[in-house]
Amino acid sequence: MKKTKAVEPIRWRGDRLELLDQRFLPNKTVYVTCRTAEQVARAIRDMVVRGAPAIGCAAAFGVVLGKGSAKAHEVLRKSRPTAVNLFWALDRMKGAKDLEAEARAIYQEDLTANRTMGKLGAELIPERARIMTHCNAGALATAGYGTALGVVRSAKDKKISVIACETRPYLQGARLTAWECVQEGIPCTLITDSMAGHLMSKGDVDVVVVGADRIAANGDVANKIGTYALAVLAKRHGVPFYVAAPISTFDPKIPDGSHIPIEERPADEVTGYRKLRWAPKGVAVRNPAFDVTPAELITGIICEKGVVLAPNREGIRKLLG
Amino acid sequence: MKKTKAVEPIRWRGDRLELLDQRFLPNKTVYVTCRTAEQVARAIRDMVVRGAPAIGCAAAFGVVLGKGSAKAHEVLRKSRPTAVNLFWALDRMKGAKDLEAEARAIYQEDLTANRTMGKLGAELIPERARIMTHCNAGALATAGYGTALGVVRSAKDKKISVIACETRPYLQGARLTAWECVQEGIPCTLITDSMAGHLMSKGDVDVVVVGADRIAANGDVANKIGTYALAVLAKRHGVPFYVAAPISTFDPKIPDGSHIPIEERPADEVTGYRKLRWAPKGVAVRNPAFDVTPAELITGIICEKGVVLAPNREGIRKLLG
Repeated sequence: MKKTKAVEPIRWRGDRLELLDQRFLPNKTVYVTCRTAEQVARAIRDMVVRGAPAIGCAAAFGVVLGKGSAKAHEVLRKSRPTAVNLFWALDRMKGAKDLEAEARAIYQEDLTANRTMGKLGAELIPERARIMTHCNAGALATAGYGTALGVVRSAKDKKISVIACETRPYLQGARLTAWECVQEGIPCTLITDSMAGHLMSKGDVDVVVVGADRIAANGDVANKIGTYALAVLAKRHGVPFYVAAPISTFDPKIPDGSHIPIEERPADEVTGYRKLRWAPKGVAVRNPAFDVTPAELITGIICEKGVVLAPNREGIRKLLG
Repeated sequence: MKKTKAVEPIRWRGDRLELLDQRFLPNKTVYVTCRTAEQVARAIRDMVVRGAPAIGCAAAFGVVLGKGSAKAHEVLRKSRPTAVNLFWALDRMKGAKDLEAEARAIYQEDLTANRTMGKLGAELIPERARIMTHCNAGALATAGYGTALGVVRSAKDKKISVIACETRPYLQGARLTAWECVQEGIPCTLITDSMAGHLMSKGDVDVVVVGADRIAANGDVANKIGTYALAVLAKRHGVPFYVAAPISTFDPKIPDGSHIPIEERPADEVTGYRKLRWAPKGVAVRNPAFDVTPAELITGIICEKGVVLAPNREGIRKLLG
């Protein structure tokens, strides 16, 4: 059996940050080297690195490279709007005395949180479960190991399998989640996003586990566009729907999901893929990158501090202590 | 203003059938010439021509080219399994004395049915409605004018606009529906299939209109994969959900949707697009081309014989007379 190497999306080298360029996966494994905060901000904006916890970690190292300057903070803060982990990490860096030590701590704590979530989440997964997931909430979206895919990894002994929604327009499911599963020997079936409902109606999905980009005080969850539809379909078919996310993804200042800013990304992500264009000229485009799943559709939120079942304002407050 | 030419997906030339090769739209407008029933069957299977009514028309001309032989019927009958219009047209051709006259009649009747459906359906569309549609149920999917897009065309004076779901994996929405709308000067916004729920939750969708590949005796509708999710989301948001389809799409011998055969298409449609591949080797794939929307989720079925609101067994029986 092939020995699998842990995926390293973020490598700190003391004087520079190396980011695995996720735009080229799975076809090419290349790293982008950042020596300034501006370069890190651009890498975040252009999706060299993506996934809420990974963005937070990268931004923390960006502050180190920018020597904690106001300008570094500003450029990083403007890189992407939805994942709150970015702002959480920047706020933490503001209060830090030793910038590098703080960034390393953010990174290490994320790794540890993912392992803990994996363990807590795996207890919720039945034997031989067919686990549907959306986008990539794996090692690539975090410091390593993953949130939703961390739960999958921790449940591997239960002979689970994964159903990966391809996640148009950016294809994080087809490119990244499928790749992580193949690397790790976890059976993975790829579908288009439009097939999820059909599979649920046939009884082919046992549980849904996704990550999150921001969780409001009432338990509403912003996550990759398409998550909301999965939650609505899961509810209709009685399929448990779990969200796995670390404390850094919670935003208790936001009362509910309607207040979460939703990034609108460039039209050319929708009119084609990379250099290929298939839509005709003259068509308008919408490209919201995230949607909001109301708490009422969520069976439980898995966090390193514990699992909140039937999440609501009270449950979230207790969790955050 | 640019003069628009009617789209001609199917041209009968007396001794040959010319099919607009929809695989290359909107980038190239090329026709495939078929001189035998086998060539027509291959064109259907390979999706040179697609869309339930268009498949029926093409198959009828295929029988003419095959001189009504048993072999011609057999090869055409095996080309694709879900759209019942294929079998309806073949059955009609079996009983015909003058094959060419019968095929021409099937074609002409489809054109007329689309115009009638358009008129009936347009009455259901509010002024300035933002009409979401899935796949392509337009001129390209029929003899001309379209079923769902026929309703859109007939409602053009109401200053409607279209939201086209791209319809992975084959991108009929992005390539064909968007193209038809642009050609005709109908405002059209393209989204990925995963964005439909988000737009509905924001109140940005007034009505959904789709086509159909087979309608069971109880009003359950098989249509392009992803239709079911749209219907579930529309129900949740109180958005009316209409199906537009001619009599040739009804299959009263099928008691309900669970009995409709669902075609599973090749994996490479999901792992990439055309020659581009983005999924890693080693991943499994599901590729059901259709799903079933239960009648309870359907506001009305628009047919050339009338509109059946809240469709059920009784309503369908009355319609079919």
